[in-house]
Amino acid sequence: MTAKTPDVNRQWTVVARPQGKVRESDFALREQPFSREVALKEGEILLDNRMFMCAPVMRGFLDGPGNARRVSIPIGAAMIGPVGSEVIASNNPDFPVGTFVETVGRWEDYSVVDPGAGRPVHRALGDMTIADLMGPLSTNALTAYFGILNVAQVKAGDTVVVTAAAGSVGMMACQFAKLQGARVIAVAGGKEKCDWTVDTLKVDAAIDYKSEDVGARLAELCPDGVDVHFDNVGGDIAQAVIDNIAPHGRIAVCGQVSTYDGDGPAPGPRDMMKIVYWRVRIEGFTINDWHAQFDEARERIHRWFKEGKLVSREDVRHGFEALPATFLDLFEGRNNGSLIVAAD
Amino acid sequence: MTAKTPDVNRQWTVVARPQGKVRESDFALREQPFSREVALKEGEILLDNRMFMCAPVMRGFLDGPGNARRVSIPIGAAMIGPVGSEVIASNNPDFPVGTFVETVGRWEDYSVVDPGAGRPVHRALGDMTIADLMGPLSTNALTAYFGILNVAQVKAGDTVVVTAAAGSVGMMACQFAKLQGARVIAVAGGKEKCDWTVDTLKVDAAIDYKSEDVGARLAELCPDGVDVHFDNVGGDIAQAVIDNIAPHGRIAVCGQVSTYDGDGPAPGPRDMMKIVYWRVRIEGFTINDWHAQFDEARERIHRWFKEGKLVSREDVRHGFEALPATFLDLFEGRNNGSLIVAAD
Repeated sequence: MTAKTPDVNRQWTVVARPQGKVRESDFALREQPFSREVALKEGEILLDNRMFMCAPVMRGFLDGPGNARRVSIPIGAAMIGPVGSEVIASNNPDFPVGTFVETVGRWEDYSVVDPGAGRPVHRALGDMTIADLMGPLSTNALTAYFGILNVAQVKAGDTVVVTAAAGSVGMMACQFAKLQGARVIAVAGGKEKCDWTVDTLKVDAAIDYKSEDVGARLAELCPDGVDVHFDNVGGDIAQAVIDNIAPHGRIAVCGQVSTYDGDGPAPGPRDMMKIVYWRVRIEGFTINDWHAQFDEARERIHRWFKEGKLVSREDVRHGFEALPATFLDLFEGRNNGSLIVAAD
Repeated sequence: MTAKTPDVNRQWTVVARPQGKVRESDFALREQPFSREVALKEGEILLDNRMFMCAPVMRGFLDGPGNARRVSIPIGAAMIGPVGSEVIASNNPDFPVGTFVETVGRWEDYSVVDPGAGRPVHRALGDMTIADLMGPLSTNALTAYFGILNVAQVKAGDTVVVTAAAGSVGMMACQFAKLQGARVIAVAGGKEKCDWTVDTLKVDAAIDYKSEDVGARLAELCPDGVDVHFDNVGGDIAQAVIDNIAPHGRIAVCGQVSTYDGDGPAPGPRDMMKIVYWRVRIEGFTINDWHAQFDEARERIHRWFKEGKLVSREDVRHGFEALPATFLDLFEGRNNGSLIVAAD
């Protein structure tokens, strides 16, 4: 394995579909000669990929086809995920050399993309850095933002439960809900994470699902029920929240991480009549519906950070070679905050 | 057993909780002396109960307590359900003698109720009859109305699937969706019911779940997916619709009749990640949130009937004594349209 050089493009490819847990052996490193003197077609830009974010949703990309709405990476093709890059050559006036961008791109050192034809490419605005686009302003932060504000429509006085609350998405969901004036209950695994959500994220209470009965604690903490569940975990914890839902409760679902390592699907509510009698709204969402609002959301979140209204926690690892191993850490909870790999 | 008389109040009481299917022996008839010269407190009215509607939701009333949002009739107390009545004595200026009303009331010949203190009591408006309030303008019709218009927000061009489409709620849901300009697929049991939904309700296609593969037929009929499911059935049919849902599909859930006779709950979607990737909204509802809109909805539906824009099918049985036996027919599908018992 080599370090990053100007004349080699390293690329992580998918060579096997994981059965259950992802393994390092599901990926293979490929190296190809590279020159930045590549001929760019009209509209194309050349990206120097600096940072890669590891997000749970990428687990689904490794599964086979059969789900028309989910990315399925062909065997032999490059792994993809959120990438933060600098434009180092450009045939597109909207993306001049030196622009920092974020896109869902390949795990490789250098990429040629066409922002007008492929996946959306978002520019850093104002003084945003690549590290901002992968950390505090990442698509994980946007997932929390759109889920809390657009889908669940959290308002002052709501009691909001956020699961995986110390994670990259959850920590932002907790804070966005607090900024809306809600009372927030965090669910996380382990005392350290729970303490951090209370002390740093300023949530109103935390439940350690590893040592506490989530349903019983919710019943204690939320005698009038849970108005909103930001659900990225699913499974038994999601059911415990439904058991304690308030009438007209809203459940914004963006993932079911508790089931990703299993071979089976992620089952829904145990009893739909509870959903009927309590008039509950369950809404699945992905951020792909809101690309047009990314800039507005990022500027707003960026301002909140500058005003000291938000905190973030990033777990930045170094080394492109370690991408698969780092990605695996995500599913073992061996990360503290947003898990990012710097390619330097 | 006696016929209705002015000096006896017959009442059907619940004497056992059904295990699985409801049985006639779960009910017992009680007779008490009655006089219409009863002393009414301020606000109270005396009702002569003329018609009783049998609705699937009443199955839940027979289950034990433990669900704070569902009626649970105590053993020994009167069965309840939608009742159409005439006010025959009144100490309430808003409900003068001669007024026709609809309420959720007891299965008995005569009732004293206080519209200001107990369950909502709705008056017939204009030339509406008691038969209208139990049939074309019943709470079943209102369930369809609020579900299609307020919850699913059906609009022109939507592809809408209505299950139990020949039933009391479903037949109205089909027609309200058509009035909104939607394409409607009816799912019903048996050729007669399916033909009726096409020929009389003017739905665009019908699927006989007893003889056809609902999922395969939906895939054929809805290549672009199902935008809205009006779900009062649940179970495998609801899953078949989810398998064919369109992105941003909406599912309005008002019941899960396929599971009412079982002892287990009504499970939700098999895979919540489908709900996420397709950005599906699932919303439970009951009409109890919309009592304030009952009058407006009934006047609108009544007008549509007069204009010939709607049809209705009622299955009116005669005899208060037969109430439990008639109620049982509902769960065997032995009714053609809204199942109503006239107490004459």
